[in-house]
Amino acid sequence: METKDMKNRIAETAKKLFAGGAKIDLPYSLWREFDHELANDFSQFITGNLYSRTVLTIQERQMAACAMLASIRAKAELAVHVNAALNVGCDPHKLAEIFFQVATYAGMPAVNDALTVYKNVLEERQEWPLK
Amino acid sequence: METKDMKNRIAETAKKLFAGGAKIDLPYSLWREFDHELANDFSQFITGNLYSRTVLTIQERQMAACAMLASIRAKAELAVHVNAALNVGCDPHKLAEIFFQVATYAGMPAVNDALTVYKNVLEERQEWPLK
Amino acid sequence: METKDMKNRIAETAKKLFAGGAKIDLPYSLWREFDHELANDFSQFITGNLYSRTVLTIQERQMAACAMLASIRAKAELAVHVNAALNVGCDPHKLAEIFFQVATYAGMPAVNDALTVYKNVLEERQEWPLK
Amino acid sequence: METKDMKNRIAETAKKLFAGGAKIDLPYSLWREFDHELANDFSQFITGNLYSRTVLTIQERQMAACAMLASIRAKAELAVHVNAALNVGCDPHKLAEIFFQVATYAGMPAVNDALTVYKNVLEERQEWPLK
Amino acid sequence: METKDMKNRIAETAKKLFAGGAKIDLPYSLWREFDHELANDFSQFITGNLYSRTVLTIQERQMAACAMLASIRAKAELAVHVNAALNVGCDPHKLAEIFFQVATYAGMPAVNDALTVYKNVLEERQEWPLK
Amino acid sequence: METKDMKNRIAETAKKLFAGGAKIDLPYSLWREFDHELANDFSQFITGNLYSRTVLTIQERQMAACAMLASIRAKAELAVHVNAALNVGCDPHKLAEIFFQVATYAGMPAVNDALTVYKNVLEERQEWPLK
Repeated sequence: METKDMKNRIAETAKKLFAGGAKIDLPYSLWREFDHELANDFSQFITGNLYSRTVLTIQERQMAACAMLASIRAKAELAVHVNAALNVGCDPHKLAEIFFQVATYAGMPAVNDALTVYKNVLEERQEWPLK
Repeated sequence: METKDMKNRIAETAKKLFAGGAKIDLPYSLWREFDHELANDFSQFITGNLYSRTVLTIQERQMAACAMLASIRAKAELAVHVNAALNVGCDPHKLAEIFFQVATYAGMPAVNDALTVYKNVLEERQEWPLK
Repeated sequence: METKDMKNRIAETAKKLFAGGAKIDLPYSLWREFDHELANDFSQFITGNLYSRTVLTIQERQMAACAMLASIRAKAELAVHVNAALNVGCDPHKLAEIFFQVATYAGMPAVNDALTVYKNVLEERQEWPLK
Repeated sequence: METKDMKNRIAETAKKLFAGGAKIDLPYSLWREFDHELANDFSQFITGNLYSRTVLTIQERQMAACAMLASIRAKAELAVHVNAALNVGCDPHKLAEIFFQVATYAGMPAVNDALTVYKNVLEERQEWPLK
Repeated sequence: METKDMKNRIAETAKKLFAGGAKIDLPYSLWREFDHELANDFSQFITGNLYSRTVLTIQERQMAACAMLASIRAKAELAVHVNAALNVGCDPHKLAEIFFQVATYAGMPAVNDALTVYKNVLEERQEWPLK
Repeated sequence: METKDMKNRIAETAKKLFAGGAKIDLPYSLWREFDHELANDFSQFITGNLYSRTVLTIQERQMAACAMLASIRAKAELAVHVNAALNVGCDPHKLAEIFFQVATYAGMPAVNDALTVYKNVLEERQEWPLK
């Protein structure tokens, strides 16, 4: 039920976000190993619908995603999205600032996890230390 | 140990964020009822240090705060910060979009809690429904 | 982009789950007040795709949903799904048993929240006390 | 299978913790309404086994319980245990201090929830404001 | 205070759940290294009382346990229980379906963690890929 | 804006807590790699303000910190603080008891994580097994 138009939209959004930077396994292939149909449904819903909307710029959306993932201490997923944030041109200092701000709402363990993930991604991208 | 400069900075940041919009009790007075010194330490750290930094614009910081608070389902605190976000001029449609995006990372209960809080704040501000 | 077939599937699944029992506001109307398109995307993804799949019986799916929602202490959403579980014929004693089992993995506050929600729904359905 | 000795031990521990102070519904009666046997198993395990051990003093145990419940924002359960903490003679200023310390690890929403619950319990006990 | 009957019940339930499949360290030995008495209390309460009850079939109980553990992203414990679920004959496709369903309530990081754990257990059991 | 007095206070508190025992990276150096000013603000707030207060003894504070960190399953941070707890002379059996007590409020995955972290720290300190 996935139209050609939707397919193109997914491919284009995915390319902007995930092609380049640190080498990180994307969850899509894991989903697909378990269930083709669901993998497509998830991909269509998240990348095709949510992430292709333009109410937020792609940079704003990635900043928000990083704020969320840091708050719930989702380290593997944060690595994916902090790398995507850098791929689409988010300011690396703003990302660090957001991770420090997490202290106020989710506490220091969340800050420390986020900065650790972020430093690893920056190292893999050979962009560490930040200037 | 709080300098006059710091006091002004806190007052100015607090005014931008919290003066106006929906009537919401701020946690500062609760802290103060328990302990004057700690209330000042917290206020100085959060409002005076973190929130006065300019790496993020005040709008970006509020968007990030809303993303974080929605993800961890902190409803009372989200009411404070979604109101502050609107006070400093965040786009109300972007805020709604962020709350829908929470679905991807923290699931629908977090989305539903956030939208419920947000709608209440908008109603109190007489800005509901969004145009 | 929503086909007629999909629309029927959503309507049918939604009817089985949500028509009857305790009167509980469904989140769909809240989504819709904020954004028609996203409300449809969410409804299509969750009810049309996930919940219409038949790998799990509809009873098994509701039992799993109740187990999940109890574990993360999502009380409002749990009320929706425990009512849906009863609507599709889940054994009410099995539901209680699952909520007690939550103790092992998520602790007593989660158990107490779940039993409180469950008791309220049963009372509204006039099915309390359980026989 | 519950011995007389165990029954006495439960009754004695429960009395120290829960008899007096703010009027708060104890979860035991909720468990019992759903399942007598499980209510007894839970009561025996938690009150009879864990809470009757003497490695921690009963005050230390209540301080730890309050620290835990504040961190996970379990407000209803925190009301029960902060009241119990006061019943067994925990220093009320130490309890407040612990709730402020939560900021470091679980963030301000957890602090604010805990202080709100604590203030309500103190008011019901007519021990507010703290001297 | 543990009767012979209880000991047999624990041994029998433990054998059904944990004997076989992937090699995974059980928490019981960790508890025992710290405290014999508490290890027995926990084992008696969880395996002897909760898990020996027959309101849920052992398969239903394991499905619920997996749903809960996936929702709270408790990876080590999920490995134990997804293996136990397969040991007692739960349908492996139903387990995958439950992990995808977690998306709705606890978000994609929980789904990805659960599928990763599940795939590892299936590989160790030489049951991967699923047919 | 950090006075000499504050600097001494931080150094003294940090030394008591963190000098000795298991070798564990402290988050301070991570913060500093990202931002000198924020690293100082955090250190001043947490170690200089909160942790230098004397309402709680330093042992009571560490016991509370361990209770909190175990409850939210913050393993890396728990390693830091369980080591600090032992450095300032907390009773190692009381710490174990607190981690078992976590079962009641945050469930077995939290207990198992905490005991695993604790055992590792004790081994590194060559204090395992406990007598």
